[in-house]
Amino acid sequence: MARHYLDKGFPLTVWNRTAERCAPLVAAGAAQARTPGELAERSDVVVACVADPPAVERLVFAEDGVLAAARPGLTYLETSTISPSLARRVDEALRAKGARMLEAPVTGSKTGAEKGTLILMTGGPRALHDELMPVMMAIGAKAIHCGEMGQGSVVKLIGNGLISFMMEGLCEGLVLARKAGIPQETLLEVVMASGYQSPYYPFKASAIAKRDWDTHFSIDLLVKDQTLALEEGASRGVPMPGLAAIREVFQSARARGLGHEDIAAVVKVVESAAGLD
Amino acid sequence: MARHYLDKGFPLTVWNRTAERCAPLVAAGAAQARTPGELAERSDVVVACVADPPAVERLVFAEDGVLAAARPGLTYLETSTISPSLARRVDEALRAKGARMLEAPVTGSKTGAEKGTLILMTGGPRALHDELMPVMMAIGAKAIHCGEMGQGSVVKLIGNGLISFMMEGLCEGLVLARKAGIPQETLLEVVMASGYQSPYYPFKASAIAKRDWDTHFSIDLLVKDQTLALEEGASRGVPMPGLAAIREVFQSARARGLGHEDIAAVVKVVESAAGLD
Amino acid sequence: MARHYLDKGFPLTVWNRTAERCAPLVAAGAAQARTPGELAERSDVVVACVADPPAVERLVFAEDGVLAAARPGLTYLETSTISPSLARRVDEALRAKGARMLEAPVTGSKTGAEKGTLILMTGGPRALHDELMPVMMAIGAKAIHCGEMGQGSVVKLIGNGLISFMMEGLCEGLVLARKAGIPQETLLEVVMASGYQSPYYPFKASAIAKRDWDTHFSIDLLVKDQTLALEEGASRGVPMPGLAAIREVFQSARARGLGHEDIAAVVKVVESAAGLD
Amino acid sequence: MARHYLDKGFPLTVWNRTAERCAPLVAAGAAQARTPGELAERSDVVVACVADPPAVERLVFAEDGVLAAARPGLTYLETSTISPSLARRVDEALRAKGARMLEAPVTGSKTGAEKGTLILMTGGPRALHDELMPVMMAIGAKAIHCGEMGQGSVVKLIGNGLISFMMEGLCEGLVLARKAGIPQETLLEVVMASGYQSPYYPFKASAIAKRDWDTHFSIDLLVKDQTLALEEGASRGVPMPGLAAIREVFQSARARGLGHEDIAAVVKVVESAAGLD
Repeated sequence: MARHYLDKGFPLTVWNRTAERCAPLVAAGAAQARTPGELAERSDVVVACVADPPAVERLVFAEDGVLAAARPGLTYLETSTISPSLARRVDEALRAKGARMLEAPVTGSKTGAEKGTLILMTGGPRALHDELMPVMMAIGAKAIHCGEMGQGSVVKLIGNGLISFMMEGLCEGLVLARKAGIPQETLLEVVMASGYQSPYYPFKASAIAKRDWDTHFSIDLLVKDQTLALEEGASRGVPMPGLAAIREVFQSARARGLGHEDIAAVVKVVESAAGLD
Repeated sequence: MARHYLDKGFPLTVWNRTAERCAPLVAAGAAQARTPGELAERSDVVVACVADPPAVERLVFAEDGVLAAARPGLTYLETSTISPSLARRVDEALRAKGARMLEAPVTGSKTGAEKGTLILMTGGPRALHDELMPVMMAIGAKAIHCGEMGQGSVVKLIGNGLISFMMEGLCEGLVLARKAGIPQETLLEVVMASGYQSPYYPFKASAIAKRDWDTHFSIDLLVKDQTLALEEGASRGVPMPGLAAIREVFQSARARGLGHEDIAAVVKVVESAAGLD
Repeated sequence: MARHYLDKGFPLTVWNRTAERCAPLVAAGAAQARTPGELAERSDVVVACVADPPAVERLVFAEDGVLAAARPGLTYLETSTISPSLARRVDEALRAKGARMLEAPVTGSKTGAEKGTLILMTGGPRALHDELMPVMMAIGAKAIHCGEMGQGSVVKLIGNGLISFMMEGLCEGLVLARKAGIPQETLLEVVMASGYQSPYYPFKASAIAKRDWDTHFSIDLLVKDQTLALEEGASRGVPMPGLAAIREVFQSARARGLGHEDIAAVVKVVESAAGLD
Repeated sequence: MARHYLDKGFPLTVWNRTAERCAPLVAAGAAQARTPGELAERSDVVVACVADPPAVERLVFAEDGVLAAARPGLTYLETSTISPSLARRVDEALRAKGARMLEAPVTGSKTGAEKGTLILMTGGPRALHDELMPVMMAIGAKAIHCGEMGQGSVVKLIGNGLISFMMEGLCEGLVLARKAGIPQETLLEVVMASGYQSPYYPFKASAIAKRDWDTHFSIDLLVKDQTLALEEGASRGVPMPGLAAIREVFQSARARGLGHEDIAAVVKVVESAAGLD
């Protein structure tokens, strides 16, 4: 994502928890900050993309974090997937110091980030969404305003819930097909001819066929989002029996040491439960 | 489906458990048989489409059923969704009398049947599949040969499993969105811009938005297929924790008297669990 | 069970699908029938105990089965766990020939059968229950009249449902305790001091501690009963999300080849899902 | 619990978030502190019993909390059910100031608290457990040392997991029995004669029969503990598909406004899913 800003001529300062990771970007012309706070001091817009809520807490609230350097005129664009309540908490803290925030979690996985075709789901003031369009369109293909602060995160969590259902459904189906002696291509041909077709099925089925667990979207990250979705459901009074059942299958993948692999690798849990391998 | 045969000039004899239902077809030129056996006697190819396995048992094995009239030269095309084991049992019985069978469960729901755009998943001899293409293309847009007798049914059950996952995932998501104050169109706009898009989501979300439970595919029929899929999983040693959880939600819809409504109406169970009326 | 009849002086004729299994009983004084029908001809009361519904179908409805020899005066005591609907079907067939039936599924597992301490749950006429008390008390410690034909089976299925919940709850708890470094005895000491104590917990936890999978009640049989319970729930409109989730765990045990082991062995599935072993 | 200390002659100071709740105890001879910190200053042993982790956070870490007044010689006995990680965090903070802590979550519900028959599950130094026995035996009947700090909480969460399984199993069974026309007493008679008997079943079934939702243990509190158990499972790599499914049923009870009722009231959710009002 950072490289797109360089490529498109944005003046860029970068920070990463692991400083060496900045080297290629620095070599390509980016400045490097020693702390998130320093980065915020030097920038008009801070674009954040980290792994999980604790990483956002550190980035913003640490002594050397973004909040310490927040000031009127600073804009914080949060593209990480976090809980709606954390998004609101960061927003309140920044607004108290005169800064502004737009949440904009993204979908599109590693490929979307590389190609600049991410979809952004924004929450926060509509005017700020409009103002930040150039910043967002540098990394994505589309930005959809979902409502107030937190609502972008909710939409993102629901989307990753749908991915979870589709992935688990595909795996249960593929393992049954395999035991019934049906070639995967036949099954996929039917799916793609049907009204419930989705490009997601051949994308993930193909990875499974090749036993290619190269990570587009890791099991660790999806489980984090499933957990956030269930917490959001709990706090809003929405039982989610399907997602709850599915999360435990993905939890098993983590417990077996597959957390860093692509979510397609959850098929290994379904296979194991069926006595395969 | 029957009307397509008339429209395309196939000589047609019809039978229905409820004889009056044949009237419009008879008015349009079809002959009417008093029993499935009589229909089989008069026909080269019997195309069966009934609600569930017991209806197929009656159609084929009753004293006045198709089997009683089976003979070399008779072909039986089974388009109902039944268990793979029943498909194999009917096939064996027919072959013992010199007749031939192709299973060809369909997907496309009521609209597909009306428009002649069904997808057929066939199981049985490849040569018979090829031979029956004209008969199948009169009612459908595509026929995919899935393998031996029973394998077409397995593919169909897996497909309806996928539908179940997508429907439950959509409902859990829509109810969470509603409680979070997010407009349904916003959520759908994101879904349709993403890699996990599917035409199935707006199709069913639109029915939910309009509270239109007009039946394309009924809850009763989907629960029947979910149950057949779980039975197939049990007999082949494939645990299906996702589908099992989802089936109980649909069972609740049946228990509440919604069995005859479209599967989109399962959202009412998800809403009720969330305390919404 | 048969030996108790011999020990208590009942004149006894025995039949088993595998004729050699009768040898010890014949050596101890029992007569041996070649078919269930022959056994029924020679007896006043037929006491049936077989593995599953298909075995009952064979026993009763086969050409050489009990039904063929049914007559006024014959009494059929069914102690197998079967579906309520099969119990009613057998009952109707026997009554049509003037015979009488009492269903009396048992609980107590292998030990209860050996010690004659089974509990019988009867369905059928109260007067027949009373009349058969001596026959039932020869193999059990207590017989409880549950209502009409089929209701004894329902009670039995509910009881095995409770066992399923307790067993899965115990396993999830034991594996969490193990990963948290808590000795099993400590956990059991707390459970047994609490209001939710049950002798079932130390009984099964002790087997797990010893990795002793010697079969008191096999996974195959419990899965059969869970399936019958879910079918009964489906037919009566009772969603059972807990039991449905639990059954898939036990299905996994079957798929991994543990079906013949004691139900305590389901812990191996829970351990495997947690990445142990 | 506080009254037992008065009755047994312990000098007692009390604090409650809602100060008026202390009135009956003050009338009976207790002193009243204005803050948890003041209470800690005046006491040798602080016995804490609050609703949930946030309440413990406030009690200990607030400016006027226990930690502010912690000193060598102060002992903190935590009887609330909280996460093992929070127990460890409080312990570390107190030890840093020279104070000591024993966690001792309790089981026995409201009746156990009133009668002084609670069971305490302790975590922390064995010597401290022994030293505090007189303090614990004033409110309970038994204290079991479960291991290090946090392990008492894990045992408590597992125990409440077992309660969840038993409660859901009972409800699914009772609703099926009701639809099958089987009297609840008959079912309970069988359960209590069986090897899986537990006093918990008639305790809760009786409340259900009387539609008496008077709170011994509230749905809100049990859901909190189920959530803590699932979080502990997630952090230790233990998938808990049974508990996850069950929690969603209890979540539905909360979403329908039953959170303050006794856990027996979850039967209303199971009934509603089955189409019963």
